Amino acid sequence: MDPALAALGEFGLINLIRQRVHQRSPGTILGIGDDAALLALPAGGGLLVTTDMLLEGIHFQWHWGRPRELGRKAMAVNVSDIAAMGGRPLHALLGLAIPPAGPSLADLEALLAGLEEEAATYGITLVGGDTCRSQSGLVLAVTLLGTPPPGQALRRSGARPGDGLWVTGMLGGAAAGLLALERGLRPGAPWPADIARPAWLGAAEEAAIQAAIAVHLAPVPRLAAGQALVGCATAMIDVSDGVASDAGHLCAESRVAARILAGRIPIHPGAAAMGRLTGRDPLDLALRGGEDYELLFTTPTDPRPILGEVAPGLAVTRIGEVSAGQPVPRLAREDGREEILAGGFDHLRVSG
Amino acid sequence: MDPALAALGEFGLINLIRQRVHQRSPGTILGIGDDAALLALPAGGGLLVTTDMLLEGIHFQWHWGRPRELGRKAMAVNVSDIAAMGGRPLHALLGLAIPPAGPSLADLEALLAGLEEEAATYGITLVGGDTCRSQSGLVLAVTLLGTPPPGQALRRSGARPGDGLWVTGMLGGAAAGLLALERGLRPGAPWPADIARPAWLGAAEEAAIQAAIAVHLAPVPRLAAGQALVGCATAMIDVSDGVASDAGHLCAESRVAARILAGRIPIHPGAAAMGRLTGRDPLDLALRGGEDYELLFTTPTDPRPILGEVAPGLAVTRIGEVSAGQPVPRLAREDGREEILAGGFDHLRVSG
Repeated sequence: MDPALAALGEFGLINLIRQRVHQRSPGTILGIGDDAALLALPAGGGLLVTTDMLLEGIHFQWHWGRPRELGRKAMAVNVSDIAAMGGRPLHALLGLAIPPAGPSLADLEALLAGLEEEAATYGITLVGGDTCRSQSGLVLAVTLLGTPPPGQALRRSGARPGDGLWVTGMLGGAAAGLLALERGLRPGAPWPADIARPAWLGAAEEAAIQAAIAVHLAPVPRLAAGQALVGCATAMIDVSDGVASDAGHLCAESRVAARILAGRIPIHPGAAAMGRLTGRDPLDLALRGGEDYELLFTTPTDPRPILGEVAPGLAVTRIGEVSAGQPVPRLAREDGREEILAGGFDHLRVSG
Repeated sequence: MDPALAALGEFGLINLIRQRVHQRSPGTILGIGDDAALLALPAGGGLLVTTDMLLEGIHFQWHWGRPRELGRKAMAVNVSDIAAMGGRPLHALLGLAIPPAGPSLADLEALLAGLEEEAATYGITLVGGDTCRSQSGLVLAVTLLGTPPPGQALRRSGARPGDGLWVTGMLGGAAAGLLALERGLRPGAPWPADIARPAWLGAAEEAAIQAAIAVHLAPVPRLAAGQALVGCATAMIDVSDGVASDAGHLCAESRVAARILAGRIPIHPGAAAMGRLTGRDPLDLALRGGEDYELLFTTPTDPRPILGEVAPGLAVTRIGEVSAGQPVPRLAREDGREEILAGGFDHLRVSG
């Protein structure tokens, strides 16, 4: 344990967090510093609540550096869940377990600054949490509360035969970024001397890999897009485990089939570059890599005019369509083969 | 990873949880199975929210067995926080990180059954969560939502000079139970052959130690007592880190001093027995051990008639009083010495 952190102690750290947190959500009656937070919510409007954890050694490696981005990501992955419901995030809680050989006080301050930065971006107030030790590995468990859109939250269960299946942004970036980090590439750093650089890898490919690393370290939740799709999308989910898995959830909950065209998948250029570098199939990174935190949704209309207004520059791609039938997604390859699309990221099936 | 658990996979496990969860709270519009849970809350009544984690190697050891009690405790420690606000728990989320060499599917099922059992006791519905791997050690991160009592939640900040300082139940039981578990004693098991049994340790002492083990493994949150104290108590906190620390929080938030009489501390008989067995001071276990999950509160009146009605048999003890002055608790010993009471459990100051 960093002596500065041990000297501060658990309650000193909680006080430090309490002092640095800005009140920016309506309805915070009582924030950090009591047994529970006390909130006032808009009458009759309902409440959205979600929780997502990031664990060292599983979701991130401490030696990648970048505690600020880690704090941002811990908040962002939860914002993405609220975005996928078309909601508005308001209040957050942070569970923080710190290993003995863990971060210094300065690293923790950077992490908290990143969390607060992301909270500021989306109008969220940190109102409570829990701080303790862990035996090994930093644990970040964020819970996020918000309000559903007026009318109805956007669920996974509303897709109807005939709807188009759409996705925001590019896919496979986060998985490619993870591959790059695992190989020793670092954000903003020049190509490492100890990694052979193939002749085909030019400045454009290197920039694409850097962009993929940025997606992995600090994904951008599609909050404005999610909110704008209320009234347009019939079902929505965020792409956290990969389209293969997440389209499967959408089909199962909506009891519909979906046909996804392989040639339409918007593959992140960093996934193309890392695929070529490592021999991995870029399409597989895009479909099964996970952690892109884009939105996958169904709609009977063209969502591009709506999304073009709130998120100009954000790619929006029709990757397939919904039909009646066995409630699973199928992948139609360009050579005419068609197969059930399965096998996104599953935490408990990963070896090691 | 248990092959049965790996075969089930992350989403199979989530489905299993979803199937076993009972809906018992009003206002659950959308529970497990979407990006976020959607709840309807009583209009204008406000919301309480709290989160508490249990980590293997820190809060519990897997080799103690008792996954059912572990599930109960993960919920109970959060119920205790809502109890300390005088509130009513309604909805919970479970963050669950599972190590590769971790629990079997059967153990996880027992753990979830315990969690659900505790949820049933207090009228709580599990509405969401997050499941993933951990690199080492099981992590349970429960978030609990509830409603504050009509009028006002009971805070830590309302204590006034002249109020009595009271505590429910007996103190030091959880710390004594932990000592016993660490020495190899097990719940319901006969005295281990490899631990010398002193002559003074009779059946009564052994039963007291067993009771202390039960407090540590599955503490009983004082929900009915907390609710009944609304309108009577001026400030309240649950005893999670020990009275030394928790009275400190109460004094700091209320900006009052408190004088605690050492001779009045209701020491759990298991703490007396384990103190004698290990050479630890039972008073120190009671004041600094933590995890008893009793309620520490201030009131200008006698709370015993009120508590006697909702929690017959629950000890209620006046351990001191509130006064103006430096906002810290002081301990008055029976020999007349008086000292600032400090040093409850602090996660980041513990060595190792």
